[in-house]
Amino acid sequence: MNLPVECVPNFSEGRDAARVAALEAAIASVPGSYVLHRTSDADHNRSVITFAGEPEAVLEAAVRAAARAAELIDLNHHRGVHPRLGALDVLPFVPLGDTTLADCVALAHRAGERIWRELRVPVYFYQAAAIRPGRAPLEKIRQGEFEGLRENTLSDETKRPDLGGPELHPTAGAVIVGARPILIAYNINLATADLSIAKNIARAVRTSSGGLPCVKALGFPLASRGRVQVSMNLTDFNVTPPHVVYAEVSRLAAAAGVTVAESELIGLIPRKAVEMGFANALKLPDFASSSVIETCLASRASAK
Amino acid sequence: MNLPVECVPNFSEGRDAARVAALEAAIASVPGSYVLHRTSDADHNRSVITFAGEPEAVLEAAVRAAARAAELIDLNHHRGVHPRLGALDVLPFVPLGDTTLADCVALAHRAGERIWRELRVPVYFYQAAAIRPGRAPLEKIRQGEFEGLRENTLSDETKRPDLGGPELHPTAGAVIVGARPILIAYNINLATADLSIAKNIARAVRTSSGGLPCVKALGFPLASRGRVQVSMNLTDFNVTPPHVVYAEVSRLAAAAGVTVAESELIGLIPRKAVEMGFANALKLPDFASSSVIETCLASRASAK
Repeated sequence: MNLPVECVPNFSEGRDAARVAALEAAIASVPGSYVLHRTSDADHNRSVITFAGEPEAVLEAAVRAAARAAELIDLNHHRGVHPRLGALDVLPFVPLGDTTLADCVALAHRAGERIWRELRVPVYFYQAAAIRPGRAPLEKIRQGEFEGLRENTLSDETKRPDLGGPELHPTAGAVIVGARPILIAYNINLATADLSIAKNIARAVRTSSGGLPCVKALGFPLASRGRVQVSMNLTDFNVTPPHVVYAEVSRLAAAAGVTVAESELIGLIPRKAVEMGFANALKLPDFASSSVIETCLASRASAK
Repeated sequence: MNLPVECVPNFSEGRDAARVAALEAAIASVPGSYVLHRTSDADHNRSVITFAGEPEAVLEAAVRAAARAAELIDLNHHRGVHPRLGALDVLPFVPLGDTTLADCVALAHRAGERIWRELRVPVYFYQAAAIRPGRAPLEKIRQGEFEGLRENTLSDETKRPDLGGPELHPTAGAVIVGARPILIAYNINLATADLSIAKNIARAVRTSSGGLPCVKALGFPLASRGRVQVSMNLTDFNVTPPHVVYAEVSRLAAAAGVTVAESELIGLIPRKAVEMGFANALKLPDFASSSVIETCLASRASAK
């Protein structure tokens, strides 16, 4: 079975397990759409579901997920540390295998059109699927979040959705739909409740303020755990892999007198990033994927 | 293509590339025998070739490799830091997939019988394939090496081969044939030429002198690199994985005032050991193989 497209919807619900299960069920209700992974976080009050399949199945599942999210989630009652604009907040399509980013842009545009036409939830397009200048970065679109943009889309034309509106949906906000290469969502939790430390480290490591390349970072409190978090997206792990970020955040944390409690992946990670981290940790300069038994056997198996 | 048996012959030749290529060619000359990996070390003067296939193909390739090694390698002229008793020194059969260790014991015994009968090279059986009490540990059999055992097999009955002999083969010595689960051959090179440091660390980490469980270790000089090496076999990486050994050797090296220059794998490593090392390095307590995209997709692919 070939799974040429991945989709990684981020929903503004991370506390009510029954609702998250309902969102997952909507995705799994489409034949040929396969849920690969699910992560929920209570402090973020957010869930990330990773699924994959043939383009048409993924498209249908994405629209059903958007519909279910709009039914179940009312942003007027949503609180969480992670910024959000929609019940289904972000909907990226990711190429796998031989699929191209352009294929995913086309899919994102079709998904966006259906979400507005069928659900009356306005849509912004981001990253490779952006259609307005300045809208490629997700964080630019989301500035102000649900509460702020709800006010601004009427008065400020530059804030209006790409499809639909100009008002946001009264409970479901808007969906930010995009196409992007694989990224690694990676969080490092610090053994302190001092939010300023996480915010300072996030600022120090993120690309936009002169930190590491291909890193987006925010500092969040994790009230339920009495910790703070440096929450990151690594947009090109070949440039900045997780182990490099871990080393840098550890160094900055130590300089601030705190330690790393643990780290966590949100969603899936490419195998190569795992191998890069292993080789670095054990100073294995000659390590190659072909040294892994299972990889070696699988490549033999597919060669014959 | 299914590859149910792995075989990892260790040859006493690691300097002459043409000879090593000839040994590899002998293995690859059998239809259904697939060479997966090859490592040669000049200081050890030793090569490890990993291959796999169906049992009958692997058996035939192992016998051809033993024959070629006996033709090409004369231990009277062999010098290297790694202990050795034969031209083809060690011949372990390793179960993959649904193959059992008992299957590999049977294969080892058949290989040993053919090596003695067809090549007149005597055979010792080790580990799961051992047939004499006290002969399970490879290092016990190899004690004295080619030069020592050549003298002793006549006078000391306890030193005699399990098949053939009592004299060793005059140039090819003897082959130590066995069956064992997967192990990880893992070396850590220290940025010093002081052999006593490597020997002391090897003694401190090896199981037989009270170190870490499931670890065999020796200290070697690497004259060509001006370094010393802690050379290890990790016989159960679920008990003691490479990253634990790396941390302990690094700690002992630091205590001796030296640093780890780099480490190296000889042959293949199971994917799980890579993932264990990555999760440890990045303090990822919840890391699971199912979080790796490729693993996740492959398990979906095979499920349908």
